[in-house]
Amino acid sequence: MKVAVTGTGITKFGELWDKSFANLAEEAAGRAVVESTVEPQKIDAVFCANMLSGNLSGQNHLGALITSILNINSPAYTIEAACASGGVAANLAYQAILSGSIKNALIIGVEKMTDYSTAEVATGLMGAAAEDERDAALTFPGLYAIMANAHMEKYKTTKKHMAAVAVKNHRHGSLNENAQYQNLITIEKVLESAPVATPLNLFDCSPITDGAAAIILSAVEDSSKKVTIAASSVATDKVGLAKRKSITELLATKIASQNAYQMAGISEGDVDVAEVHDCFTIAEILAMEDLGFCKKGDGGKFVSSGITEIGAKKPTNTSGGLKACGHPVGATGIKQIIEITKQLKGEAGKRQVKGAKIGLTHNVGGSGATAAIHILRI
Amino acid sequence: MKVAVTGTGITKFGELWDKSFANLAEEAAGRAVVESTVEPQKIDAVFCANMLSGNLSGQNHLGALITSILNINSPAYTIEAACASGGVAANLAYQAILSGSIKNALIIGVEKMTDYSTAEVATGLMGAAAEDERDAALTFPGLYAIMANAHMEKYKTTKKHMAAVAVKNHRHGSLNENAQYQNLITIEKVLESAPVATPLNLFDCSPITDGAAAIILSAVEDSSKKVTIAASSVATDKVGLAKRKSITELLATKIASQNAYQMAGISEGDVDVAEVHDCFTIAEILAMEDLGFCKKGDGGKFVSSGITEIGAKKPTNTSGGLKACGHPVGATGIKQIIEITKQLKGEAGKRQVKGAKIGLTHNVGGSGATAAIHILRI
Repeated sequence: MKVAVTGTGITKFGELWDKSFANLAEEAAGRAVVESTVEPQKIDAVFCANMLSGNLSGQNHLGALITSILNINSPAYTIEAACASGGVAANLAYQAILSGSIKNALIIGVEKMTDYSTAEVATGLMGAAAEDERDAALTFPGLYAIMANAHMEKYKTTKKHMAAVAVKNHRHGSLNENAQYQNLITIEKVLESAPVATPLNLFDCSPITDGAAAIILSAVEDSSKKVTIAASSVATDKVGLAKRKSITELLATKIASQNAYQMAGISEGDVDVAEVHDCFTIAEILAMEDLGFCKKGDGGKFVSSGITEIGAKKPTNTSGGLKACGHPVGATGIKQIIEITKQLKGEAGKRQVKGAKIGLTHNVGGSGATAAIHILRI
Repeated sequence: MKVAVTGTGITKFGELWDKSFANLAEEAAGRAVVESTVEPQKIDAVFCANMLSGNLSGQNHLGALITSILNINSPAYTIEAACASGGVAANLAYQAILSGSIKNALIIGVEKMTDYSTAEVATGLMGAAAEDERDAALTFPGLYAIMANAHMEKYKTTKKHMAAVAVKNHRHGSLNENAQYQNLITIEKVLESAPVATPLNLFDCSPITDGAAAIILSAVEDSSKKVTIAASSVATDKVGLAKRKSITELLATKIASQNAYQMAGISEGDVDVAEVHDCFTIAEILAMEDLGFCKKGDGGKFVSSGITEIGAKKPTNTSGGLKACGHPVGATGIKQIIEITKQLKGEAGKRQVKGAKIGLTHNVGGSGATAAIHILRI
């Protein structure tokens, strides 16, 4: 028995002021159900990934809300692991199917963020960080700026290296009709954009986004022509930066990815296409290194070389990543799995990576305390 | 292979103003680890059950916080299903162990509620309900009062029947040194207590509580003398009362318990001791009926007959239940499993049910949209 992605559904990502949380959930779940041809009554469990609904809108108990929408009585679980909620929910669903206790699971990530002020959202997001970081009035751009400064000092990484991530992800996003930003940008535009937390400028940061993404995972006996989960791995590290062994790497990413490569029986060189967690441009540079795509410290040069573009050797964030496709927190990890599924099935349209057979998703919570890795293959 | 409860740890339940969320988590987790003799490094995954931390204190990402406290890098999941968060987290951990992907899981429920105003907590708790119920300014006592009124009208249930639940649970709580309330009360005292939402008086309601409860579940080959999970089942129903088929029963409880009896290969008559979700006295009456312990409509007479007392045929809520032991939301479902484990091991001290071999826990989310059932045996 293998676990396959049998259905996917996604909404437009962006500032969707005319759509409610329930609208978004219904749209994504409905599309996944239709694509999968699994009847709603055959969905054995629902996993809902969300971080901020309780905090921002006072609505918890989302798992049961989704089963209410689908008019089913299946078990329902709401999963939270900050910005890694989606990847972590998929990991739990995968395990539940492997256990044999269920056959079909709907995993839906949904977040409604733009109805609230930037201050409310920024404060809510700091719930992913450590209490002493909140007490020090740090924000997430601030936390990643600390990592960026350390990386620049230790490895001669430059602001231009970081800007290259944003430029590439906007180029990829311009090929994705669901992306929040589909405009092209330049290195100069990133360097000239407003400073947020030095060295990070506005265009080094992923946006605040509404959106939903859903997949159906199913137990299958015949996996030919199907995208299957070859590995699913989650690891954690200290929540606060001050307690980590190093702030120029994400240890959780290293542990989770090494475990995943082993589970899948592959090495990092076998990955044809990847969706990684670029909440800030420095985060994609760290990801390249911690996933083993390049040597520690070389991430800046690696991305600037063009090697992570569609058409080059290691296409990364073909969806546009968090930077251009947008970052509706709970939905991000599920969107990554959908993007890789489409790539492996040859259904990625203008942004198709030719002949991709193995793909990886990398979803990070907070400033790196949680990492969820999935390896998919066809 | 079976899944056994190999360690338990619980804090005092109550108004613990001198203890932080982290203190409580560390205390409960530490005790479970010591009791289990499973080294922290052998804990393969952490499941943290919590509802209100993001909303009340702005702290999310609790799973990783717990692994930070334990100084491990294992996967960590935060699970929310309103007041059923604990039972639902245990269900996921059980499935993960059954899948063979992990051997030992720490499941910890923790909630810090008394640092906030009653209005903040009551508003937070309404996150478990439907949006239209919040818009109508309903509270949880109000939602259960609607069910109580319907039950009184349809089945001649009386306020005295409901009061009998509170009196019995305080009697049981008086035997539990960890209970929030260890004082005895009378039917008259319940009937004379301040009205909260007619017909529910103050003593019909469970309190606001701080506390943490942790268990370690492990894959075991030799289950002799061990308490094992014979069944674990979760079901859902519509979140809002207005959309339910009936408001004099909890459909999710019926579905989850019937599934659990089938999984365990037992009938309701085989249950020697039960911990049920008495967030309000009417809820325990509904539980008796929906779990099949008595006929629909007879719950009031059933509890008033004394049959659910320690020493009688169907001892229920020997811990004192939510009413007397307290209800730190995320911790409640785990506390129930700990209480049943102690009963089956003959370690329940003054409140021991003689010769108990099979026990059941029943944990409800919101006004009944989620139900989690566990059947344990020795």
